[in-house]
Amino acid sequence: MSATSVGSAAGVNRQFKLAARPSGLPKESDFSLVDAKRPAPGDGQVLVKTVYLSVDPYMRGRITGVKTYADPVNVGDVMAGGVVGQVVESRSSELAAGDFVLGYWGWQEYAAVNAKGLPKLDPQLAPVSTALGVLGMPGMTAYFGFLDICAPKPEETVVVSGAAGAVGSYVCQIAKIKGCRVIGTAGSDPKVDYLKNDLGLDGAFNYKTTADYTAKLKELCPNGIDCYFDNTGGQVSDAVFPLLNTFARVSVCGQIAHYNAQGPDLGPRLLRLILVKQLRVEGFIVSRFADRFPEGVA
Amino acid sequence: MSATSVGSAAGVNRQFKLAARPSGLPKESDFSLVDAKRPAPGDGQVLVKTVYLSVDPYMRGRITGVKTYADPVNVGDVMAGGVVGQVVESRSSELAAGDFVLGYWGWQEYAAVNAKGLPKLDPQLAPVSTALGVLGMPGMTAYFGFLDICAPKPEETVVVSGAAGAVGSYVCQIAKIKGCRVIGTAGSDPKVDYLKNDLGLDGAFNYKTTADYTAKLKELCPNGIDCYFDNTGGQVSDAVFPLLNTFARVSVCGQIAHYNAQGPDLGPRLLRLILVKQLRVEGFIVSRFADRFPEGVA
Repeated sequence: MSATSVGSAAGVNRQFKLAARPSGLPKESDFSLVDAKRPAPGDGQVLVKTVYLSVDPYMRGRITGVKTYADPVNVGDVMAGGVVGQVVESRSSELAAGDFVLGYWGWQEYAAVNAKGLPKLDPQLAPVSTALGVLGMPGMTAYFGFLDICAPKPEETVVVSGAAGAVGSYVCQIAKIKGCRVIGTAGSDPKVDYLKNDLGLDGAFNYKTTADYTAKLKELCPNGIDCYFDNTGGQVSDAVFPLLNTFARVSVCGQIAHYNAQGPDLGPRLLRLILVKQLRVEGFIVSRFADRFPEGVA
Repeated sequence: MSATSVGSAAGVNRQFKLAARPSGLPKESDFSLVDAKRPAPGDGQVLVKTVYLSVDPYMRGRITGVKTYADPVNVGDVMAGGVVGQVVESRSSELAAGDFVLGYWGWQEYAAVNAKGLPKLDPQLAPVSTALGVLGMPGMTAYFGFLDICAPKPEETVVVSGAAGAVGSYVCQIAKIKGCRVIGTAGSDPKVDYLKNDLGLDGAFNYKTTADYTAKLKELCPNGIDCYFDNTGGQVSDAVFPLLNTFARVSVCGQIAHYNAQGPDLGPRLLRLILVKQLRVEGFIVSRFADRFPEGVA
């Protein structure tokens, strides 16, 4: 969301804080909007005003209180997240007022942050919002997670779950550029139309209104499935796995179908399919590719 | 088993045939022992007498009637399997009576087979039975399936399920040679003793008498698990996966816990663990490494 037109009173810094650990689907009351004091930048720091902030699926994991690959957000903390901001006051020679930067100060209107090492964005090169999209974390996730792990070849069939999301829609476009047959799943008819008509996918279906995923996938993937880029898990994945071809590759990017799950979650056992079809299934967190981001941006 | 001391009457060829498709655990009545006519070798063929034949876990898949990576054995067919035989009559210049060869003529006493291309075994180099063991399919399975897919590093913790089996015991020994901490599971106390005392494993437990696999694995793997070589699947795998370290590798070689299963088989969902721990899980059939077998034998 853009915060440029909703500035708060002078000296105030509005923040979204985690108010309670969500149980199952997060509720509005799990967050609180508070008026904090606007911080003053110290030596070498800049005061930045949030212009764009990102809402991403990984955030559900951060607020569970379980340490996975990153530290959790604790109750009372400002909600974490990537932000594009504009410098409003500088006490550093590295940045000047008006400069756009990318940071990770979370869901708040202002922050005082160290200028050193803060990535500066060039609005002439691309809209600054892309630093949170195709040129940012979601773009790098799609680029490396699909190309490195799925290693797609022309003419292969690629299925993308959560295909209309930030990461999914980039994967679909990269797969089309690579000459693949691309099939996507999404959760609404407008998203399915977007996949077919705007992104030019070879097929797509609404998982909320399709009764038999297996039959639909067989119809859309007459030669089986060679690559599966999984953002969702759940019953879509349950239907995809048996249709994978020998030596197929699965890139596990997200499992949003399970992020709100409570207690143990059972599903069809996959190891036997992985064995007889000689599948390679690999999970990844985009940070593992951090030293190659310039390659991805290029 | 050795067939050398149980020769049948002249002109007879005893064969084990598949009599019925097993439902669940195979029964003796699913096989029949029949007296067939001993075949006569044609031009370019040899008559071979079975000296050793192999009984392997993959055979359960062959008799289900479902095509996987190999054609099924049909009812009425001689049971398939690897065999070491000795030439008793030759109609080829490539082999002479007395030569030992490796073949795939299955569970029968004699076979007439083409001499061309039949691997000849040198009894001076190694006992001929090893062609069905460490220098044969199980050895190649262990060597490539473990080293190529798990890529173990010294000091890493390796867990092997079905560790006392043909493949498992080779994997354990290779892992020890590579300087790993090696933990195995097996189905009897004598096998556990063999793993600890003869193979020098760092730990082993009997999965039939251990109540809590998770607690036992935590005790034996204080630094978590870096490599898992899975011959069994089932509840051992269910306990191993949550204990895998970030970037751990899983080589899926067998799933014997499920080979007799009927109907759908549910288990804990693994994809979320694969995601957050950035695991790589890969299944393999040893034939994919066929062109590298000389490297494995060496």
